[in-house]
Amino acid sequence: MRILIIGASGTIGKEVTKQLEHDHDIIRAGRNGVDITVDITSPDSIKNMYEIVGKVDAVVNASGGAAFSPLTELTPEINEKGIISKLKGQVNLVLLGLNHVNKNGSFTLTTGIMMDDPIPQGASAAMANGGVKAFVKSAAIEMPRGIRINSVSPNAVQESWERLHNYFPGFDAVPAKRVALAFKKSVYGAQTGQNYEVY
Amino acid sequence: MRILIIGASGTIGKEVTKQLEHDHDIIRAGRNGVDITVDITSPDSIKNMYEIVGKVDAVVNASGGAAFSPLTELTPEINEKGIISKLKGQVNLVLLGLNHVNKNGSFTLTTGIMMDDPIPQGASAAMANGGVKAFVKSAAIEMPRGIRINSVSPNAVQESWERLHNYFPGFDAVPAKRVALAFKKSVYGAQTGQNYEVY
Repeated sequence: MRILIIGASGTIGKEVTKQLEHDHDIIRAGRNGVDITVDITSPDSIKNMYEIVGKVDAVVNASGGAAFSPLTELTPEINEKGIISKLKGQVNLVLLGLNHVNKNGSFTLTTGIMMDDPIPQGASAAMANGGVKAFVKSAAIEMPRGIRINSVSPNAVQESWERLHNYFPGFDAVPAKRVALAFKKSVYGAQTGQNYEVY
Repeated sequence: MRILIIGASGTIGKEVTKQLEHDHDIIRAGRNGVDITVDITSPDSIKNMYEIVGKVDAVVNASGGAAFSPLTELTPEINEKGIISKLKGQVNLVLLGLNHVNKNGSFTLTTGIMMDDPIPQGASAAMANGGVKAFVKSAAIEMPRGIRINSVSPNAVQESWERLHNYFPGFDAVPAKRVALAFKKSVYGAQTGQNYEVY
């Protein structure tokens, strides 16, 4: 398979790449992508990426962020980061990529545990995650040419635990490799419309 | 209680108003609001509404929309309607309204069945609904001064069935009055972070 991984050099993206690179042709994309540069907050940048990349069998996204902010300090402007990156960035990877994915191909997006197990300062990220999860579930029933779509919802990962542990007290961080396996399940498997919880 | 109802003249908003108006001081807002005009897609319009209205005990939103579109025809631009109206419009009613809601007050937003029971052409609405549901669940744990927040997720309503039945084949439409009762439960009750499914 020819697999486009966006966010390939991130903590999770690197592990996803490891899981897939032995058997497949991997195109590594990202803000400083090894193979191609993309800014998912820009529809034009996404279009440009797909035009250069051409046809692929799978699109895996491990990029996209949202601001952490106490709710009482969360403004529409601060909330916009999660809207344009984690939510619209990922949805647009699908909307603008449909014609670039081969028959029976797949999209795999990223959500996150905060929508199911809320933490202080996490409302904006939860919102974006919940939007992506619901989009995936609904879009799955309309995907053309047998294309599948799933999302992976990671817990905090052990590799980022030093930076994240104050935000996630009492969470049992998971190895990024376990998260990567869920991406592999989505790419290799036959399920669609799923949100794989790696908690 | 002093209750601000946005979308008070809509199919569901009218029934919510009926449920609450005998016992409370109702302020009816909307694009052509009886008491005050507001466009929830505009943060400035929301701010202006709250400045005029002052303090309230409950904010109920029964407004906000998203475009119906086949997935293969859904563009980032078409998807934007759901982003700015049903998703950001509702989230901004909370972010910009927090200081206008009295101690132990509440917010009640609207999601919808399409996020749980997807229909063709519903991916954009599902995305917005899922984002609002997750925001509510997460924001609930950080609300100041005992303020609660819930959402109501309506099935298609019988009053709109003539217009909607082709979109919702096999759905068992519910009376708008049943949906309004869930809003009443949210406003009168003590629960928070809930998404009341009226299916």
